[in-house]
Amino acid sequence: MSKSGVFTAITKLLKRLFYLMTGINAASQLQYQSLGEEMPQSTKTAIMIIGGAEDKVHGREILHNFFMRSGSTDAQIAIIPSASREPAVIGERYREIFTEMGAKRIEILDIQDRAQCEDPILQSYAESCTGVFMTGGDQLRLCGLLADTPLMTLIRQRSQRGEITLAGTSAGAAVMGHYMIAGGGSGESPNRSLVDITTGLGIIPELLVDQHFHNRNRMARLMSAIAGHPDCFGIGIDEDTCSLFEGDGLLQVIGKGTVTVIDPKELTHTNLLHIGATDPLSIGNLRIHILVHGDRFNLHERIPIHAQLDNM
Amino acid sequence: MSKSGVFTAITKLLKRLFYLMTGINAASQLQYQSLGEEMPQSTKTAIMIIGGAEDKVHGREILHNFFMRSGSTDAQIAIIPSASREPAVIGERYREIFTEMGAKRIEILDIQDRAQCEDPILQSYAESCTGVFMTGGDQLRLCGLLADTPLMTLIRQRSQRGEITLAGTSAGAAVMGHYMIAGGGSGESPNRSLVDITTGLGIIPELLVDQHFHNRNRMARLMSAIAGHPDCFGIGIDEDTCSLFEGDGLLQVIGKGTVTVIDPKELTHTNLLHIGATDPLSIGNLRIHILVHGDRFNLHERIPIHAQLDNM
Repeated sequence: MSKSGVFTAITKLLKRLFYLMTGINAASQLQYQSLGEEMPQSTKTAIMIIGGAEDKVHGREILHNFFMRSGSTDAQIAIIPSASREPAVIGERYREIFTEMGAKRIEILDIQDRAQCEDPILQSYAESCTGVFMTGGDQLRLCGLLADTPLMTLIRQRSQRGEITLAGTSAGAAVMGHYMIAGGGSGESPNRSLVDITTGLGIIPELLVDQHFHNRNRMARLMSAIAGHPDCFGIGIDEDTCSLFEGDGLLQVIGKGTVTVIDPKELTHTNLLHIGATDPLSIGNLRIHILVHGDRFNLHERIPIHAQLDNM
Repeated sequence: MSKSGVFTAITKLLKRLFYLMTGINAASQLQYQSLGEEMPQSTKTAIMIIGGAEDKVHGREILHNFFMRSGSTDAQIAIIPSASREPAVIGERYREIFTEMGAKRIEILDIQDRAQCEDPILQSYAESCTGVFMTGGDQLRLCGLLADTPLMTLIRQRSQRGEITLAGTSAGAAVMGHYMIAGGGSGESPNRSLVDITTGLGIIPELLVDQHFHNRNRMARLMSAIAGHPDCFGIGIDEDTCSLFEGDGLLQVIGKGTVTVIDPKELTHTNLLHIGATDPLSIGNLRIHILVHGDRFNLHERIPIHAQLDNM
């Protein structure tokens, strides 16, 4: 072994010892630093779940991140404005933004009828595009038009294989899990009638997403939802904030607000099955993490990895 | 040992074995059942922290509980309306209620000046009374008038020794911990400026109480408060709901809504010390329990004890 080889081996050994001695947080932090906060490479695809009201005027941090991850100036973007009742207006808004950024090609897939999802021209673009953006509006409308169509199956599979970057904001975020919050209320004790659950598009099935989260005081409704679906993670995303998934089992936070993770793995009790729709819910042992820009959450190990290392 | 002595010893042994075999939940359940849901005996004093807007017209469950725990028809009640800007009106309202229930004596301690707290007549009544009720209003006003006065010291010590039943609703609930939420907001990501913390009356020092809890969407503000005081329990009490303490380390829930316990014992991280007042808070590993009528929480063992036994 050469001198530099010995040096490298010793360095590796010391690093490993350091990991062992300082525990998981330090290890995670190094992992975090190595993945870095720098602008994503244009080839690094992701699934981006945006809490609504993302900045469209100033820094456009989240939208620019989507643009870069879709291929930057090589990006071929599909905008799906079908959640909205004004798809033309909202579609054009995003087209302008991505045009300004310099995308190579942008198409608005203005689907207003499920039959359009079998159109070979739309499917062909969905096969060749590098990024898909689903706008806000009504998540029930979006699912009603797209769920279980050949077009959506294609987009879902391509995003899950990491071939494209798929982003959804507001209603476009709500549809990401297998279960979807279709609507609900606030200002009440957690109860079953506080949240309407239906089926989403199943892009990342184990997530149960809520958006405009702290902005619209939705903690009680997401807790109510999770009490009935303790096999999911509750993911509450604030406005102008994004939960980003690169396919490595890590949720990464970018943007201005917080992402709240409700982990019900240790749930010991709920009275959900024994009470009326408006009776208050009893829920024992929820674990909650509030994450900010730069923080991550490991979905496999169920642990938060904070950007700042000052642990308790 | 007599025959009946042997029988008692065997019964005790079997009970202990049963506890061991069926685990903590069953044991807790038996404990719960033995303490029972029946109306409290008139001699069982408690500290009652009420989330505001308790029923004053129909069942009056919480107020009747206070009346019974203050001695029923032997009750000698002191009403402290000092949180309110209309102490005469609110004082009379409660006087009527407790008079209708049949209390033996009711005095309104209309303290509008700290000097009154040294009045021997007021102190004498505080020494002989069996129940003290603090109304809603402004918790800063209540603390400003009462904190560290001989009268409040007397009431605090008597309630802590279990000599009287002490109840506080809304502002009267907010003052119960060593730290007190003086005000705050909602509809934002958790952040330091979302909550104003000051010093309370320290009746149960380890509690950090918030009231009108889900009704006014105060989860984010209580989480923000707890991030800065991880030595406390966050206790969020809904309207017409009461956290009741009998001095045995158990919190018991009565009423219509929920009591939310935020337990930060396992907190691994917060960025609180490194960010600006309006920057979003990062908080790792909060444990949360939502409790309903009949549920309990063991403050020493930090475990919820649910009224319904159907655990996960």
